[in-house]
Amino acid sequence: MLIVQKFGGSSVATLERIRNVAQRVLATQRTGQDVVVVVSAMAGETNRLIGLSNQLASEGDAQLTSKGPYVASERAGDRAHERELDQLVSTGENVSAALLAMAIQNAGGRAISLVGHQIGLQTDGTYTNARILGFSHGRIRQELSAGNVVVCAGFQGLNAAGNITTLGRGGSDTSAVALAAALKADACEILTDVDGVYTTDPRIEPRARKIHRITYEEMLELASLGAKVLQIRSVEFAMKFGVPVHVRSSLNESEGTWIVSEQKSLESAVVTGVALDRNEAKVTLTNVPDVPGTIASIFGVLAGADIIVDMIIQNASRGGSTDVTFTVPENDLKKAVAGLRSLDLPGAGPMDILSDPDICKISIVGVGMRTHAGVAAKAFEILGRENINIQMVSTSEIKVSVIVHERYGELALRALHAGFGLHEGPASSAA
Amino acid sequence: MLIVQKFGGSSVATLERIRNVAQRVLATQRTGQDVVVVVSAMAGETNRLIGLSNQLASEGDAQLTSKGPYVASERAGDRAHERELDQLVSTGENVSAALLAMAIQNAGGRAISLVGHQIGLQTDGTYTNARILGFSHGRIRQELSAGNVVVCAGFQGLNAAGNITTLGRGGSDTSAVALAAALKADACEILTDVDGVYTTDPRIEPRARKIHRITYEEMLELASLGAKVLQIRSVEFAMKFGVPVHVRSSLNESEGTWIVSEQKSLESAVVTGVALDRNEAKVTLTNVPDVPGTIASIFGVLAGADIIVDMIIQNASRGGSTDVTFTVPENDLKKAVAGLRSLDLPGAGPMDILSDPDICKISIVGVGMRTHAGVAAKAFEILGRENINIQMVSTSEIKVSVIVHERYGELALRALHAGFGLHEGPASSAA
Repeated sequence: MLIVQKFGGSSVATLERIRNVAQRVLATQRTGQDVVVVVSAMAGETNRLIGLSNQLASEGDAQLTSKGPYVASERAGDRAHERELDQLVSTGENVSAALLAMAIQNAGGRAISLVGHQIGLQTDGTYTNARILGFSHGRIRQELSAGNVVVCAGFQGLNAAGNITTLGRGGSDTSAVALAAALKADACEILTDVDGVYTTDPRIEPRARKIHRITYEEMLELASLGAKVLQIRSVEFAMKFGVPVHVRSSLNESEGTWIVSEQKSLESAVVTGVALDRNEAKVTLTNVPDVPGTIASIFGVLAGADIIVDMIIQNASRGGSTDVTFTVPENDLKKAVAGLRSLDLPGAGPMDILSDPDICKISIVGVGMRTHAGVAAKAFEILGRENINIQMVSTSEIKVSVIVHERYGELALRALHAGFGLHEGPASSAA
Repeated sequence: MLIVQKFGGSSVATLERIRNVAQRVLATQRTGQDVVVVVSAMAGETNRLIGLSNQLASEGDAQLTSKGPYVASERAGDRAHERELDQLVSTGENVSAALLAMAIQNAGGRAISLVGHQIGLQTDGTYTNARILGFSHGRIRQELSAGNVVVCAGFQGLNAAGNITTLGRGGSDTSAVALAAALKADACEILTDVDGVYTTDPRIEPRARKIHRITYEEMLELASLGAKVLQIRSVEFAMKFGVPVHVRSSLNESEGTWIVSEQKSLESAVVTGVALDRNEAKVTLTNVPDVPGTIASIFGVLAGADIIVDMIIQNASRGGSTDVTFTVPENDLKKAVAGLRSLDLPGAGPMDILSDPDICKISIVGVGMRTHAGVAAKAFEILGRENINIQMVSTSEIKVSVIVHERYGELALRALHAGFGLHEGPASSAA
């Protein structure tokens, strides 16, 4: 039995917590399993290092980036700079890996830490956001055979030229799943400060329940629920390689949420979870010339400005012009409108641009929808009973999303959570 | 032309200083030389990391080691622990290397930082104090050809198994000299906060003058003068491979002190420098049985306790017993006496142990002594004129050391400095 355990930055934020992690890891090993551990940098350390880099560039001004992709945008694409940033930032994980290995040794166990060139994770050359290409696990296997807990610095790999690369935000989750896939581990445990994935956000609906088992596809659709718990990119990786992922608390021993393939689900619930995304804004274009190429021009402008468009609805044409409505991240709304204003479309009169930040998106997700008709209709009925107006609808095979006014978001979430029986039923797509 | 420049922890202690180092490096490159830079960790960082390791072991107590070999002695020899310590501590140099490379880029230059596995410095497996075995300079050559300043993290190498090793205290100086030797660099510059090596300690004798040129052998004998400036171990390395070392200030452009082979010295001064070492203590054993093996037992006890004995004098035997006098580091005096008390020697009566911490050692050094007779006699005469009693004498080919009472140390140093004409003459073994 081989298990990969991943501990995030908050789990190794202090020496006290590192000692606790060491005990946890040793307890796992005592059950007879080989253990590979993947750690993030101590909470705050990555931002401290990025801060040094930013201050260096700004001649002394303190500029701490605490959010967003970690390359200051004005330097994005400067490969020499991004290479150094990766060399710099990866040291954060090296420190926590060495400290955890020491803590395990102090507790009487055998452990060794591995960093960049020792781990064997090969990536492409995209600094700050590298993709994993392969893995040579000779060293890890060898250290496991020697009876060691192998503590790997997360977030990092090595490109073909031997340069250190990092895997982008949440990269340690991806490291863990990639190692689990390559080592054919029995499971990849993501140990975190919550005890699993819930049917919905418990801060909005206290009756939300922990999901015991969920499919990769559902987890991806429930990104807004899962993003607080684990990086969505690692779920894509787990799905691709069929790695069972177990999201659980680092503070207790209870079972958390298993993320598995649909084949391993015994029975599919119709709806597994309900998610609310407040971070969307709506743009409506009226009087759009209904000629070929117009839509491509509109969304070309947005793509050029790196704006991710979510839902798109185009109404039927009326007299040579049409309406188009779509949603963008709320933070990008101004940029989107400015881009569209600058657009010079051929044809009838000026296009009207209406924007509305006061909307939100509610999604219900479940693989059971594939075999159960009428899920969308039932959702509309539930919202109708609450007098909530639906502004837009979008569906996929296992998801129904609706756009409603922001003030009705929480009400809609609670109504759907109750209406689809998530308060009590088996909160699992494999009960 | 290829030059290796080494900057210590105080030169990269702040972002402001890192920017200054970047300017200095670029100025050197503009003179048409290829530049390889070796950096230490930002001042304080190594101790911070060691402090984390110590706190981890001591369950929360803060134990910052600020001096001495960086392995807490109770863990010395614990290879698994020392391996992790090296993985941990080496990150300090990785951070400063990446930041300096960024600073050079910010200033408009081309630079790349290299760490452990990228540098190509191969060592043995002695963690925390590894010896350099070899060097593969493919990557450095390649980056130099591409027009980069190559910034190497100092202090670290890689053993045959791919584990990170560190080179012991002052290891960055040794890294720099080793790289200079392997790359056949024209010089290795040690840039520091003093402007060279002086004929004696200027805090004691204000008329001390900067030495322009000194041989490796003299530098080794003048360890107590040089140790503040560069690690003595790196001088041994430079001597072995004939690397010209230039110790100079990182704050100005003046020439510092060149440390070179004797062959490159045009003319040898009789005395090049005078050094004072207050950190010695004297032990006298009387009534020592004069039988074979006794002396071996005595110094075997001291060696077993890791005590380095400097001078040793044994008097002629009188009636079956003899006296032995030797010096040890003052910090080891108690341990030495305790060890000797426990010694059970066969033969006549109990041995008397007299110890005296109030002594110091004065050394005069110069390769010219080899060809000038009477240097020791002249030194004794100078000290005699000052009524300074000489307690012990030890000489080597290029050195005369005397032990005197601690209170006469500074007086003796000034008298010898003046008496051998160091106030005015060409302060150089190659004028």
